[in-house]
Amino acid sequence: MLYNMIAKLDKLFEFEQVSAHCDIPCKIYDPITIQIAVLSMLRMVELIDELKAKSNLSLEQQATLARLSGEKEKQGIKVKEETRIIWGDYFKQPQITQFPEIHELTHNIMLKTSHAKQNVDFSSTLELLVLVNRFAEIFWQSKNIATYEANSPYPPFQLVTYPKLG
Amino acid sequence: MLYNMIAKLDKLFEFEQVSAHCDIPCKIYDPITIQIAVLSMLRMVELIDELKAKSNLSLEQQATLARLSGEKEKQGIKVKEETRIIWGDYFKQPQITQFPEIHELTHNIMLKTSHAKQNVDFSSTLELLVLVNRFAEIFWQSKNIATYEANSPYPPFQLVTYPKLG
Amino acid sequence: MLYNMIAKLDKLFEFEQVSAHCDIPCKIYDPITIQIAVLSMLRMVELIDELKAKSNLSLEQQATLARLSGEKEKQGIKVKEETRIIWGDYFKQPQITQFPEIHELTHNIMLKTSHAKQNVDFSSTLELLVLVNRFAEIFWQSKNIATYEANSPYPPFQLVTYPKLG
Amino acid sequence: MLYNMIAKLDKLFEFEQVSAHCDIPCKIYDPITIQIAVLSMLRMVELIDELKAKSNLSLEQQATLARLSGEKEKQGIKVKEETRIIWGDYFKQPQITQFPEIHELTHNIMLKTSHAKQNVDFSSTLELLVLVNRFAEIFWQSKNIATYEANSPYPPFQLVTYPKLG
Amino acid sequence: MLYNMIAKLDKLFEFEQVSAHCDIPCKIYDPITIQIAVLSMLRMVELIDELKAKSNLSLEQQATLARLSGEKEKQGIKVKEETRIIWGDYFKQPQITQFPEIHELTHNIMLKTSHAKQNVDFSSTLELLVLVNRFAEIFWQSKNIATYEANSPYPPFQLVTYPKLG
Amino acid sequence: MLYNMIAKLDKLFEFEQVSAHCDIPCKIYDPITIQIAVLSMLRMVELIDELKAKSNLSLEQQATLARLSGEKEKQGIKVKEETRIIWGDYFKQPQITQFPEIHELTHNIMLKTSHAKQNVDFSSTLELLVLVNRFAEIFWQSKNIATYEANSPYPPFQLVTYPKLG
Repeated sequence: MLYNMIAKLDKLFEFEQVSAHCDIPCKIYDPITIQIAVLSMLRMVELIDELKAKSNLSLEQQATLARLSGEKEKQGIKVKEETRIIWGDYFKQPQITQFPEIHELTHNIMLKTSHAKQNVDFSSTLELLVLVNRFAEIFWQSKNIATYEANSPYPPFQLVTYPKLG
Repeated sequence: MLYNMIAKLDKLFEFEQVSAHCDIPCKIYDPITIQIAVLSMLRMVELIDELKAKSNLSLEQQATLARLSGEKEKQGIKVKEETRIIWGDYFKQPQITQFPEIHELTHNIMLKTSHAKQNVDFSSTLELLVLVNRFAEIFWQSKNIATYEANSPYPPFQLVTYPKLG
Repeated sequence: MLYNMIAKLDKLFEFEQVSAHCDIPCKIYDPITIQIAVLSMLRMVELIDELKAKSNLSLEQQATLARLSGEKEKQGIKVKEETRIIWGDYFKQPQITQFPEIHELTHNIMLKTSHAKQNVDFSSTLELLVLVNRFAEIFWQSKNIATYEANSPYPPFQLVTYPKLG
Repeated sequence: MLYNMIAKLDKLFEFEQVSAHCDIPCKIYDPITIQIAVLSMLRMVELIDELKAKSNLSLEQQATLARLSGEKEKQGIKVKEETRIIWGDYFKQPQITQFPEIHELTHNIMLKTSHAKQNVDFSSTLELLVLVNRFAEIFWQSKNIATYEANSPYPPFQLVTYPKLG
Repeated sequence: MLYNMIAKLDKLFEFEQVSAHCDIPCKIYDPITIQIAVLSMLRMVELIDELKAKSNLSLEQQATLARLSGEKEKQGIKVKEETRIIWGDYFKQPQITQFPEIHELTHNIMLKTSHAKQNVDFSSTLELLVLVNRFAEIFWQSKNIATYEANSPYPPFQLVTYPKLG
Repeated sequence: MLYNMIAKLDKLFEFEQVSAHCDIPCKIYDPITIQIAVLSMLRMVELIDELKAKSNLSLEQQATLARLSGEKEKQGIKVKEETRIIWGDYFKQPQITQFPEIHELTHNIMLKTSHAKQNVDFSSTLELLVLVNRFAEIFWQSKNIATYEANSPYPPFQLVTYPKLG
């Protein structure tokens, strides 16, 4: 079983490995792209909410609404795509054994993103950010890299889980 | 009529449904697009294998190899994308309860597709088709639609799981 | 075996075939992707029509309208693209001789799709489905595969022309 | 003024016009994008042919071949796409009556582009340019704009049909 | 001949050229694609302005607004992309020395395009066309090709800078 | 509150700000996406170099070369795109005044990326990373956020400039 696992990893990531150690993964995955996409969705919600405060939208404001809505949509697709890539390409049996919650967490991110795409709902989109931060935390833990939380250095200034580097 | 309308909108825009009955799905999902993409990967492998039989590739044949390889890559991405969409958008709690294997099956499709992208391996890509056919079978069963197997009406003429209609 | 290989390569890389027999097509074409795209357009029209019933749209509903309209647009482009691919890549002299109507039918699909993109018109979009079903019927006939009609197993539950397999 | 506005909207959003006069086209079509894409294919063939002169390709040259081949592919798809758009969106009954050859010409462009994608063949790709120039000539004639031929002001310096302006 | 071939490859694959003469450019650049994209933005503004004249938009007209707005957005992205490509790939030290304004002009095109995307403003978008025409003029001058101005042969019939050919 | 809302909308939709203070940026820009793309290019070069060590490539290895080369190409386009977005959308007069080198730096990133796309050259691609790190440093400085350097937590483990957060 272990042999099988190593053999598969072998096939997948190295086309010429002499070393038996593969603690150094070969592809570049970084959950920050997912996190930035969720922050962008939150930002779009903020801006749409500001339009909501208006009593009546001018045609230009309607066009702006269409732009904001389109951008939220696009970022939502990105959240799903980037999450699928890390889940489907990086997570293999060892990581799944270590974090048995990963399948359900990933699926919940998908459902929550659908909700965030279909609605204009800040608090629910914030819950999506929490899920995605947990996803990032698991990812970095699986690589033995500690994490910390800090507000994003740009709007919407929400808590994001970052790896401790340097 | 009004009830119907509300019910439909409900289905489309709300993902937190308590009802376990979802017999009138609102969006259009069809696993055939995944299946066609896997068939295309198999076809590309066939054609690359034919080039393999040559002792020495001319520059034009090398260009053809790059085209076939690029197409295989593109179809592989499509397999992952379309599978992610049905898994992440269509499958909700009732379907997951009914088919508890769905998370692992989906994840195996991702891993198998990576393998099929990174290698030129007909039998392994055929195993991917089997996984994808099982995915289609579950999908149609969750909608109470029976399925049957038939060879695809075009190369590579492999067994595909189709819904029984009409 | 060698003959087979040459024949296949021939089919793939040469478009000037004098033979009227093309019983071993080399590429994978399937009009189902066009048909699914038209069904999606019809579904979007249904959902937009439901919004129409409202007296006054909230800002969230306007955002939904933009999403539905954007999706209809995207599916319309897909209809044109997929139709162009089968018409321009699969149909060659033998098939054109067999079905002299194909150029005009394809062009009518283009015009009808433009209309369906530019309007919210269920009955006209249904006429597009009829054209696309005829396109599918011709395609399968050119490969000597019989067809039948059945309602799509998902909304909008309209008649779709499928190949008889198995 | 109001009449003008209505007339324009009419042109844009309705395709079933009985009038045979369409001297004020509503959308912006320009065959130059098709012509540039064919010139790009020709240029890629030139550069691939230069690699052909080498006795043995280094790995870097093989990578270059893959890039050139990929770019040729991409430009070929563009030729088909842009041609389909003008043919399917701009050409309506009046223009088809005036130029009955347009369906077959368009279809020949599709076949010829497939050939140019699948091969590295300068003279055949040059024949594609001739077809595309004829397509451009018809387009401009349908708008009563005269044309002239000149070498493209960049490689591969081949004859291109341009509209006479100013 | 051999010299020519090497010189061409040189031009294509090496960007650090000391020669100030680049009269045989190797890649195909043509600012017409940027100009067509700006004309398309102007056309979308015209059509949105026509909707503005209405007192109250029907749901179909709102959908049309979303389409026009989405197309304007898409063309704006194209303006930025195509400008970036010519600026970043074609302009090298000799051209920059000859036209020291090029960096600032390119940056102004970016800012002006953002404005044109974010607003529905004909006169400001017309200023963008002026900037883009200047960009085209510089481009052709750097290749020793004279230019002239003429109204575009399609709406919005505005002045465009074209190369003098033939 | 109302003031805040107007101020925010102002920031988003108007680019002609006279104020030199832009401490509350409205859109979400993050140079990390550029940096990840350059790291990916470096990684592709590493993997291509490993193929180089082979005396003779099998057909499968040639296909792998085409994949690696295609990915390098794609990441190179991403570097240019993401850099163009931050340079063209975020940098306005105040930032340009503060960092007069920004135009030339951005242009050098474009040229260097072209070189990295057209060649398989680790040390030159590493120089691109240095340029992109300087770009990131300027970006964060313009927002009064300090930076530090650390090795990327994944291959190719090169020095990347990160913002100091928390």
